[in-house]
Amino acid sequence: MKRARVAVGGAVHNAYEYNGKVKLVDGRIFAEDEVEWLPPVKPQTIFALGLNYADHAKELSFDAPKEPLTFLKGPNTIIGHNASTKRPEAVTFMHYECELAVIIGKTSKHVKKEDAYDVVKGYTVANDYAIRDYLENYYRPNLRVKNRDTCTPVGPWFVDRDDIDDPMNLSLRTIVNGQVTQEGTTKDMIFTIPDLIEYLSSFMTLNENDIILTGTPKGTTGVNVGDEVITEIEGMGSLRNYIISDQDFQKPFEGGA
Amino acid sequence: MKRARVAVGGAVHNAYEYNGKVKLVDGRIFAEDEVEWLPPVKPQTIFALGLNYADHAKELSFDAPKEPLTFLKGPNTIIGHNASTKRPEAVTFMHYECELAVIIGKTSKHVKKEDAYDVVKGYTVANDYAIRDYLENYYRPNLRVKNRDTCTPVGPWFVDRDDIDDPMNLSLRTIVNGQVTQEGTTKDMIFTIPDLIEYLSSFMTLNENDIILTGTPKGTTGVNVGDEVITEIEGMGSLRNYIISDQDFQKPFEGGA
Repeated sequence: MKRARVAVGGAVHNAYEYNGKVKLVDGRIFAEDEVEWLPPVKPQTIFALGLNYADHAKELSFDAPKEPLTFLKGPNTIIGHNASTKRPEAVTFMHYECELAVIIGKTSKHVKKEDAYDVVKGYTVANDYAIRDYLENYYRPNLRVKNRDTCTPVGPWFVDRDDIDDPMNLSLRTIVNGQVTQEGTTKDMIFTIPDLIEYLSSFMTLNENDIILTGTPKGTTGVNVGDEVITEIEGMGSLRNYIISDQDFQKPFEGGA
Repeated sequence: MKRARVAVGGAVHNAYEYNGKVKLVDGRIFAEDEVEWLPPVKPQTIFALGLNYADHAKELSFDAPKEPLTFLKGPNTIIGHNASTKRPEAVTFMHYECELAVIIGKTSKHVKKEDAYDVVKGYTVANDYAIRDYLENYYRPNLRVKNRDTCTPVGPWFVDRDDIDDPMNLSLRTIVNGQVTQEGTTKDMIFTIPDLIEYLSSFMTLNENDIILTGTPKGTTGVNVGDEVITEIEGMGSLRNYIISDQDFQKPFEGGA
């Protein structure tokens, strides 16, 4: 089943896909453009990966990493389907990154590779934008590169684990203003989903609804204000995002409480 | 006022300091060792700083950074006063780090330095352990260095902002098994509290109860299983922590739901 969280009539609802429409758990049915899409889950921790596709590492002239290059993202990074991501005025290199996002299903620690899928609830599509102007270090990006508000659209749906035959064999692509600009397959991940779950859970507890963003294949390029950016993964759907200027948000602080 | 979150009788209570004791908001009074101390707030985002004291950077033979070296910590890192931190068996360099923790008071974005204290709710003491065996990069530590479960005691109290005359002029110290091993002053921070709030809020929304760990002065040294580690800051109290072995927690995963 494909599930979602949407806002309708001033309230947040759990919903699922029903004949190409959005059916709320209360039974009401809406077209996809009649609801406000939220991130499909509310994670406590959002993990992200650097250089986890061999072709992408090569594109950037890096050797493939020997240990997963993991970092965390804050809760204000994520937004839902059809939302807008703010682009700072002064940057040159703001790149989309189409990624398979793994959603954790339960509290877990010290998970072995062979048991890893037991702790997965499902999957969704992510676009983990990076602003490379601020990048001093590819292996461990700083907060300005990967943690700006709104820099990570996720959704629209999360797809139940058992509805995806093989998450390590899915095609991914990005379409900017109608042109395909990135194509890859999850087969090319350096560290697989079981590798990542074993690694992270060896020293950190994973919690229900935590998200692991598994990295992006080659073909990341820049986006500009006004662009429509669609990231999609086979069997999971298309995540639409718009690029807007950060300028309007540079309002001065208004003072005390 | 000094405030806390404690567990008593199977429930979590807000509490405050009352004649050297812990008074729950329901009026009951307990000795400090009769309650289970929790982290004094529940943050959404935990920010941490690398190399933010000039003497500590020098101790490690680094130039002082030109931009705050910030990274995020996950929600499972933090534990309360009197709790235990797990030390991996195989490491040599697990170092305490006494730090002033700033607690954010409200949702804020684009805060200017001169308004920064308006968005501060209070302060607490932290001990932001680092496992330097895993360190490949001082400027941006990986998750194994700074994000293990239980690696960041905080507390016991959070102290209201207005009860601290000058947070940039407080002495800090660490006491391991009764011996003072680290002494410093918040005067030596490279990026001050207003600097950090202006910097972080320029690209990320700060939320109520978010924590900023502001870095540690020189004098960090190793701890071992069995050690009692006390970090304290002038006017804020003493945060006690015990080091235990991670060995007992290396249980295999038990399988499905």
